[in-house]
Amino acid sequence: MQPRMWRGVVEEYREFLPFTDATPVITLREGGTPLLESRLGAPVGLRLLVKYEATNPTGSFKDRGMTVAVSKAAEARARGIICASTGNTAASAAAYAARAGLPCALIIPASGVALGKLVQGIACGATIIAVQAAFDRALDLVREAAPLLGLTLVNSVNPHRLAGQKTAAFEICDALGRAPQTLAIPVGNAGNITAYWAGFKEYRAAGRSKSLPRMVGVQAEGAAPLVQGHPVDEPRTVASAIRIGRPASWDGAMTAVRESGGTLLAATDEEILAAQDQLAREGIFVEPASAASVAGVLKMGRAHQLTGHGLKDPEVIQARANLPAPIPATLEAISERLSLG
Amino acid sequence: MQPRMWRGVVEEYREFLPFTDATPVITLREGGTPLLESRLGAPVGLRLLVKYEATNPTGSFKDRGMTVAVSKAAEARARGIICASTGNTAASAAAYAARAGLPCALIIPASGVALGKLVQGIACGATIIAVQAAFDRALDLVREAAPLLGLTLVNSVNPHRLAGQKTAAFEICDALGRAPQTLAIPVGNAGNITAYWAGFKEYRAAGRSKSLPRMVGVQAEGAAPLVQGHPVDEPRTVASAIRIGRPASWDGAMTAVRESGGTLLAATDEEILAAQDQLAREGIFVEPASAASVAGVLKMGRAHQLTGHGLKDPEVIQARANLPAPIPATLEAISERLSLG
Repeated sequence: MQPRMWRGVVEEYREFLPFTDATPVITLREGGTPLLESRLGAPVGLRLLVKYEATNPTGSFKDRGMTVAVSKAAEARARGIICASTGNTAASAAAYAARAGLPCALIIPASGVALGKLVQGIACGATIIAVQAAFDRALDLVREAAPLLGLTLVNSVNPHRLAGQKTAAFEICDALGRAPQTLAIPVGNAGNITAYWAGFKEYRAAGRSKSLPRMVGVQAEGAAPLVQGHPVDEPRTVASAIRIGRPASWDGAMTAVRESGGTLLAATDEEILAAQDQLAREGIFVEPASAASVAGVLKMGRAHQLTGHGLKDPEVIQARANLPAPIPATLEAISERLSLG
Repeated sequence: MQPRMWRGVVEEYREFLPFTDATPVITLREGGTPLLESRLGAPVGLRLLVKYEATNPTGSFKDRGMTVAVSKAAEARARGIICASTGNTAASAAAYAARAGLPCALIIPASGVALGKLVQGIACGATIIAVQAAFDRALDLVREAAPLLGLTLVNSVNPHRLAGQKTAAFEICDALGRAPQTLAIPVGNAGNITAYWAGFKEYRAAGRSKSLPRMVGVQAEGAAPLVQGHPVDEPRTVASAIRIGRPASWDGAMTAVRESGGTLLAATDEEILAAQDQLAREGIFVEPASAASVAGVLKMGRAHQLTGHGLKDPEVIQARANLPAPIPATLEAISERLSLG
């Protein structure tokens, strides 16, 4: 059978998305990402699968929602799009805005953003505005600014973002032929856990899967408002993509956990970095925030997902690695260095 | 129709690859990458499609060949794998070796390597050896060292690498329902153009496509041995992935161009960076080497491919961007900055 190429989440799952014939499809053919078996599950008796979202066009799961949100912005003839972001959302928004030919404004906290993630926004021609504030204040600001400026807000408070993100749940069901028993997921702004849960419910309602997973939300210990039950004023964690103290989709996350009989838990930065290391040692290279779900699932679950590519946050690994000095370009020197001489 | 998830190039194209039931499949579910329409073709009357190989698991097309080469190394019970690399190959080799549980040695030139590409090798546990030599000497060295050390060489001189890389040609035919008229491709070590041409011929021979494309190989002007007809001792170009003076697959590239009625041409660094910029302005973010093919095709062809993700070589864009200073976190300041106040 001749393979059929993936067409992007809108064309693959159009009947589950708010598209009409009049909606332009702004796509980079996102989605269709791998579900990879991890060896890390075996010692704890789990079959552990990793949804490797890094293979999306801008390197993270954000592209799933952005294709929908920017398509809808284009349909509505928006003047442009705007978002606050610590990195992954900015890269995705900039790319899809460029694809649509729409101006894009990225409001970023002046510190704490991974440089690798801004490069893409710059390249795609976005206007980047660094504000003297943490992420949560920046998000408040763009929520206020968007309607006043005639711009479409594409943070995950935009419901079209979550509509697109739920397609990852569809794909997991399509890959397994059923829903997983457990879905563990990193929780920062909480849009993704909210979207996955909606996706699993919707796919079951449509008769395409027969069961629902238990939802396990994993936060970083220094940025764990949902686990602690109250906002965190100064969230701290090495996992920049989930360094958020007041999740925009707080209620959605709590609903997902409650309805699914799941749980919330926190992983320390040490546990997160250890999981990042262990995954890389089997060829799965992710950013720290993504590894948080693995750190959590090793105690907890049966299937989970990773959200972003390791390349997006390279300084964490760089800081812990020592590149040895160059050696002479001889066979002898190489043999000696490999201790095989 | 419920979407079928992509299984990786080995399972999708097994009948075209050297696999038996005894060959373990070492995979990160590579391939299945998007073919994206570019607006850049319109002004020159072309339908320009971009094969966006950045969405492979380690961020470049190298994964296609690495899944085959490392699977065969595992089948042969190799002691480990080794390669010389300027970056993309190193990242891919390290990831697939880790996936297979095999040791990996990466021999890199001490200068001229994009840092972002080494991060992944470090994370995946490879032994990284920087040698005081350019790429071409490093490649000579590993070709000599591999058999002596009992390691499998996974540079593109390994025929299994090229066997895997030809699957990109299959995918283009499957996406279009036919072969393109022209395939433009960056040429460094020349393995990729060799593999694509083999792929198009093989797919036609199997009756899965009816025609063959014209092959256009694009080199950087300061590293254009094939265009000039002789090796280049000190290749220079901003496009590090094709900064190669003595291509290992020289003959393969010349054969592809000759048999297909194609051509070879060189793009300047300025043309390459301009093409990188223009692609990013429509949401397609690639490294300079990948943009070389676009710089070439704007004069030449009808369909082409891009090889690596922009994130892999971020310094080029960083060097040309000026991040503005942070502003106060107020609506007024943002409006003013966006010139909308």
